[in-house]
Amino acid sequence: MNEDSSKVKRSGNPLIYALYNEPMSGEAIEARSLDIIEQEAPSRPFSYGQWQVVKRMLHTTADFGLVDRVRFSDGAIEAAVMALTGGCPIFVDSNMIRAGISLARLRAACEKYSPESLICHVADEDVAAAARAAGLPRSLYAVRKARSSLENGIAVFGNAPVALMELNRLILEEEIRPAFVIAMPVGFVHVTESKDEFMSLGVPYVAVAGRRGGSPLAVSALHALCGLAAEGQQDKFGIQ
Amino acid sequence: MNEDSSKVKRSGNPLIYALYNEPMSGEAIEARSLDIIEQEAPSRPFSYGQWQVVKRMLHTTADFGLVDRVRFSDGAIEAAVMALTGGCPIFVDSNMIRAGISLARLRAACEKYSPESLICHVADEDVAAAARAAGLPRSLYAVRKARSSLENGIAVFGNAPVALMELNRLILEEEIRPAFVIAMPVGFVHVTESKDEFMSLGVPYVAVAGRRGGSPLAVSALHALCGLAAEGQQDKFGIQ
Repeated sequence: MNEDSSKVKRSGNPLIYALYNEPMSGEAIEARSLDIIEQEAPSRPFSYGQWQVVKRMLHTTADFGLVDRVRFSDGAIEAAVMALTGGCPIFVDSNMIRAGISLARLRAACEKYSPESLICHVADEDVAAAARAAGLPRSLYAVRKARSSLENGIAVFGNAPVALMELNRLILEEEIRPAFVIAMPVGFVHVTESKDEFMSLGVPYVAVAGRRGGSPLAVSALHALCGLAAEGQQDKFGIQ
Repeated sequence: MNEDSSKVKRSGNPLIYALYNEPMSGEAIEARSLDIIEQEAPSRPFSYGQWQVVKRMLHTTADFGLVDRVRFSDGAIEAAVMALTGGCPIFVDSNMIRAGISLARLRAACEKYSPESLICHVADEDVAAAARAAGLPRSLYAVRKARSSLENGIAVFGNAPVALMELNRLILEEEIRPAFVIAMPVGFVHVTESKDEFMSLGVPYVAVAGRRGGSPLAVSALHALCGLAAEGQQDKFGIQ
């Protein structure tokens, strides 16, 4: 699918001048984007809190096809807000997710949050060595290493279904119970099954059903939940 | 869209035991995923090299709907392979992309690659200050700061269209000419226009047309191009 790449004669200024002439900050562009989503999104069988999460997931992908794939457990928003407000540690399954999470957004939910609150073991040398020895993915051992943080912690999956499957085992066999899980691994092997298994375990979650998922979706869901937690804080202190 | 989150009685072992019993490494799972994509993908009007790129983009999103949206300039694969083989610096528009890029894959294309080859200014203090002063997004000033690396460099966009628009201006007004561009910003404001403008400028590229895009797509395209560059290296040294 080749495009004609010959240089087209142009008239007028580069497009960026529109922005130079009427400056919009990153925040203003984000707000306008969310307004466009409100206008264009198809029907949405979501509560207010759920819709804030879905809207931000649409914002990060520009793909309205995701609307039908997002799943929430009963009480998901409340569980996530409580966990974030309490400053629960956050396990993440990839360094892309760690890099994408905004500390400012976390700290709007709970001032206790620091870079050390984010736990990612996938690049640790001991994890890599264990994975090589067993002939299994590193992400599996990264979850196992995070065992103590997963109990009452938040877990964010946007990459490997194997990581979610190992969490499922910890829940089933070792009675680990996370406070909240963002279950959005992506791919073609074990993906749908890993999510179906997880969603049967009675742990609060937001998930993307089926094969789809990804790091930006997981990050955007977390950021939206931070926003809801911050709104809750404002209510509590009467600074709405 | 609530799911019944009551705990379902389960029989048998957690799913992960299937993997314990027949271990598959991360690489083996990746290879099986790419096989599934080969089998399931719709018609694909791509060259061998282009298809390697698209296939990896499908792998990272599990979304076959992207097939129709990927665009290559004439000579895109050759330009990218030459730039990567030469160890060109790589500008990236987000820290998520920087975190997602595999140094091992880059070094398979060219041994010169190091962490310093990746240039990302979006979190720099001077960039933030300039953006605040102008009321414009940081990503715009991050591109401007990278000006000298963009000449004959590789530029990777998976986030803000404003960054791509500023690159367009540098190409049009300051005669900067990147060796290769991955043009996959995502969103709702200025996105389609930023890509249409860019694709008219005669610079080699792979892009996702329209509103869609994202960091994992940009990273996966780069990784696929690294693979093609590495294949080319093997040909050259006869170790195919």
